[in-house]
Amino acid sequence: MTSPIPIRLAAVRQAMQQHGVAACLVPTADPHLSEYLPAHWAAREWLSGFTGSAGLLLVTPDHAGLWTDSRYFAQAEQQLAGSGIALMKQRGGAPLPEHVSWLREHLARGDVLTIAGDSVAVANQRQLEKLLGETGVGVRTDLDLPALVWADRPPLPHAPVTEHALSYACITRADKLARLRTSLRQQGASHHLICSLDDIAWLTNLRGSDVECNPVFLAHLLVAASGDATLFVDRGKLGDALVGALAQDRVHIAPYATITDALGELDAQASLLFDPARVVSAIAAAVPERVRKLEAANPSSLFKARKSAEELEHIRAVMRRDGAALVRAFRRLEERLAAGMSQTELDVDVLLGEERSAQPGYIGESFATIAGYQANGALPHYRATPEAHSALQRDGLLLVDSGGQYLGGTTDITRVLALGETTPEQRRDATLVMKGLIALSRARFPHGASGPQLDALARAPLWASGLDYGHGTGHGVGYFLNVHEGPHSIRPPVAGGALVPLLPGMISSIEPGLYKPGRHGIRHENLAVVVDADRTEFGEFLAFETLTLCPFDRGALEIGLLNPEERAWLDDYHASVRAALAPLLEDADLAWLERHCAPL
Amino acid sequence: MTSPIPIRLAAVRQAMQQHGVAACLVPTADPHLSEYLPAHWAAREWLSGFTGSAGLLLVTPDHAGLWTDSRYFAQAEQQLAGSGIALMKQRGGAPLPEHVSWLREHLARGDVLTIAGDSVAVANQRQLEKLLGETGVGVRTDLDLPALVWADRPPLPHAPVTEHALSYACITRADKLARLRTSLRQQGASHHLICSLDDIAWLTNLRGSDVECNPVFLAHLLVAASGDATLFVDRGKLGDALVGALAQDRVHIAPYATITDALGELDAQASLLFDPARVVSAIAAAVPERVRKLEAANPSSLFKARKSAEELEHIRAVMRRDGAALVRAFRRLEERLAAGMSQTELDVDVLLGEERSAQPGYIGESFATIAGYQANGALPHYRATPEAHSALQRDGLLLVDSGGQYLGGTTDITRVLALGETTPEQRRDATLVMKGLIALSRARFPHGASGPQLDALARAPLWASGLDYGHGTGHGVGYFLNVHEGPHSIRPPVAGGALVPLLPGMISSIEPGLYKPGRHGIRHENLAVVVDADRTEFGEFLAFETLTLCPFDRGALEIGLLNPEERAWLDDYHASVRAALAPLLEDADLAWLERHCAPL
Repeated sequence: MTSPIPIRLAAVRQAMQQHGVAACLVPTADPHLSEYLPAHWAAREWLSGFTGSAGLLLVTPDHAGLWTDSRYFAQAEQQLAGSGIALMKQRGGAPLPEHVSWLREHLARGDVLTIAGDSVAVANQRQLEKLLGETGVGVRTDLDLPALVWADRPPLPHAPVTEHALSYACITRADKLARLRTSLRQQGASHHLICSLDDIAWLTNLRGSDVECNPVFLAHLLVAASGDATLFVDRGKLGDALVGALAQDRVHIAPYATITDALGELDAQASLLFDPARVVSAIAAAVPERVRKLEAANPSSLFKARKSAEELEHIRAVMRRDGAALVRAFRRLEERLAAGMSQTELDVDVLLGEERSAQPGYIGESFATIAGYQANGALPHYRATPEAHSALQRDGLLLVDSGGQYLGGTTDITRVLALGETTPEQRRDATLVMKGLIALSRARFPHGASGPQLDALARAPLWASGLDYGHGTGHGVGYFLNVHEGPHSIRPPVAGGALVPLLPGMISSIEPGLYKPGRHGIRHENLAVVVDADRTEFGEFLAFETLTLCPFDRGALEIGLLNPEERAWLDDYHASVRAALAPLLEDADLAWLERHCAPL
Repeated sequence: MTSPIPIRLAAVRQAMQQHGVAACLVPTADPHLSEYLPAHWAAREWLSGFTGSAGLLLVTPDHAGLWTDSRYFAQAEQQLAGSGIALMKQRGGAPLPEHVSWLREHLARGDVLTIAGDSVAVANQRQLEKLLGETGVGVRTDLDLPALVWADRPPLPHAPVTEHALSYACITRADKLARLRTSLRQQGASHHLICSLDDIAWLTNLRGSDVECNPVFLAHLLVAASGDATLFVDRGKLGDALVGALAQDRVHIAPYATITDALGELDAQASLLFDPARVVSAIAAAVPERVRKLEAANPSSLFKARKSAEELEHIRAVMRRDGAALVRAFRRLEERLAAGMSQTELDVDVLLGEERSAQPGYIGESFATIAGYQANGALPHYRATPEAHSALQRDGLLLVDSGGQYLGGTTDITRVLALGETTPEQRRDATLVMKGLIALSRARFPHGASGPQLDALARAPLWASGLDYGHGTGHGVGYFLNVHEGPHSIRPPVAGGALVPLLPGMISSIEPGLYKPGRHGIRHENLAVVVDADRTEFGEFLAFETLTLCPFDRGALEIGLLNPEERAWLDDYHASVRAALAPLLEDADLAWLERHCAPL
């Protein structure tokens, strides 16, 4: 089959010519700046053929380039072949975004670049205007050229929206909105615009399934500090009872697309709080000049990140069920391989789905399972497909990164399984990564410390051997919400980057890794919650309490490389896993658990 | 004696009234933004009576306040008593500088604040103008009110300037200037203004003694990218031969005060590179509008920070001499105490001075010795004085932080000596700090890593026990220059702060500590140089090579708390100290060295 890409590019170029535009930038973004996009906004994929989750397409009359990072070099090279689009490898570490440097070099003074206003955050638009303005290049956001030529564009998703039952949500919608309004009044805001879907879902105790793996729904929310709130959402997604319940909490429904009209009606007394990093240019542009703009992070992002004691009780119960499901799945995989059955990476995904689905409260996976055998494990975002996957052998390492959405929480766990013989190098690598996980899991740190301040604790054991990994060490995790959430994260500090303190109740993954292309990949991942640890004359100290409950496969480790403190941590962890999961398991599953949780 | 301060304040207030000024800000700064000031610019001390190294005086018609940090609360409280000046305790962590918040609250729209233009960096002036401008307050830098009323102001220092012999300086002045000019041309600068004294001393291979403990001299330097350089310095400080030698390297002499005239003569073709954080407002104001300004860090700061292989050879020799001097001083102190002689903290300083002075190439101390016995050790910047110091007893801990200036390098070392019995708490505290020193000293880290990224490695062993310290973990150190130099440092990351990579050749102190007010203080400090460690498929890795050579007193440690890797590091360190210092010591000193360097 001939690639449709050149034809689509030609159409966009024709539209560019008609509008007198020198370059068209197509980012991977939707009007909610979600990590995962509904197909309706997958213009970058439609126009380039590249399906990776991160990438940026730039089209000029005589050049088309796709910028993406090292995770996707191999995939992009393959998918862009024959498209006429050059792969532009992002190496990172440059002072300016690399595509911006390219634009500054290649566009001429007086040229105009377009980027669709519903695909660029206000903050990014400003940066683009500043950096291109310096070279005399203009930026238009009022022209969506891909949309003009995208004939068979998928419609908006229309999955139903349901109430997240209070027995799970723990805090009423009214209480959450009241807390938000207190914060708005403290900041002097009369109104607050929220476009980020997880903030809206959390505040309203509603869930949907418009975005794969993320239980959110397309909406905007406009909250008055002293008045009602309006949820801009397709009315057809909500039942009448739900609309009535929302009205009782002073949340009214308006059509999804009318958010800009509502913003346009704000009067000169209004002061609107919004986050320029979480609101797109096209929506912010609807706010009249007369309205005072207060730019700050959404207060709900921090509220949401700090899980309540009740939420944590649900999460701990979910962790037990998720751990039991994993034990059963891993035990069955082991049994099948021992029986000589042929198994592939895809079967691992199926097994996990079967076992998780059998657990009460399970909704679906929280992201697409990464089951990577041997060299495939070295691709941090590998996904086995029916067209391309590996058969499992009875040796080497299988990396399994998976997670579930439950009514009482979201899980995300990575284990590395030894399917038989492993090499000394594999065991050494897996043990050094384990040292990093243990060091960070055991860490205490002062109140006020941020993830970037702690990141090196997980890397130091790898650095000592000239090893490292190219991704962050930890991300926040939603509560029956997005598996990646802010505002905190554990990653190396970057100049100008935020330093969000880790606060009690915040959940973070702890997931150091090590990837040797063509050979094997290691990642050990638990979720942990920040807890109060100590109060001394030097202040308050915090610690991580590990939430994830599933044994590590000691067949993948070289126990002799662990020091006594590390062995003690692993023994303690396995003892707590055994105690938590044993009541949920029987027979062969229980025996498997006990064997894997025995002291080292 | 009555305090002269109220009279001086009254004179300043009268001048304020004459000039219609609502507030007068007197920082601790000179036109070179040096850490230590010649008395000529000690206006803050003259006007407040407070002698601490950090502080900021603010005078309004009805209020006078001195802002300083926790190191100086006790001292300031005492010295400000009866002055009419309130101690304003800086707590840190606020979004705005605390005196600026005070000014925003207390000054009225239309008010004017003065700050002498030769005491404020361009960058700080801009910040002040922005933050006060938001509340309608103006800033004048053309009025130096303290100078107007300071009748007995000390003259400028006039110590001689001498050549830093090439056998020590290692790189000729001509080569250093050529390297600077290459950088200027790369940045498109026709001229470069340097006001920071250590940059000037390093570039010109000249040294002076205008500033206590820092072998620098008052000067400005204007370098043409394609032309000559002018050194603005008091001609009387230089001999004729030196002036001739400088002229041969195309460095001409002009009177110190004529820097502003020279800047005023730059023509419209000129483009001037300068660092707004290292040049004061009064000097930058002399640059004509017509000159293009390029604002960037002084290239020489980075050149200077990365010591050459030849410089490092001299530094290693200096470390041997400095270590031998310390061993002799500590051994003599031990002997005197054992003989029942009464000794005080002041005697420690004298002993160190005697032994260092006996070493070849010794010039003087690199900072005022901190010898703090027991509770005095808990004051990180303690200085014993004839009026206030402690007698040493034959028990407890003596913290000794001292350093020397040698022709071949600058030293800075802290050791904690057990003078007899120590408590389990003291030994435990000293051992936890030692764990931090060892963890950072042993660390390997990837090329590109910055000090803020590594800081937690030194703190984690303290955090684990609910302990911490309030200062940075490491600072750069000059080469026969200032004991504190940038651009790198090892400290917790701060929002908006620079992340300067640690590069091979950079020297940093590694000096975790622990301070228990009223009880005892611990600090272990070595200097280390960043070296290449490894090149793997994951990139280049760097490490620290410890430079300082002096045993740690195991009587202050609880060896049982160290793990095998930590004991091995300490044994290795002591073995290298023994090997390096033994050839320089004899008899009782050698025996002392061998006893203190024996394996644990």
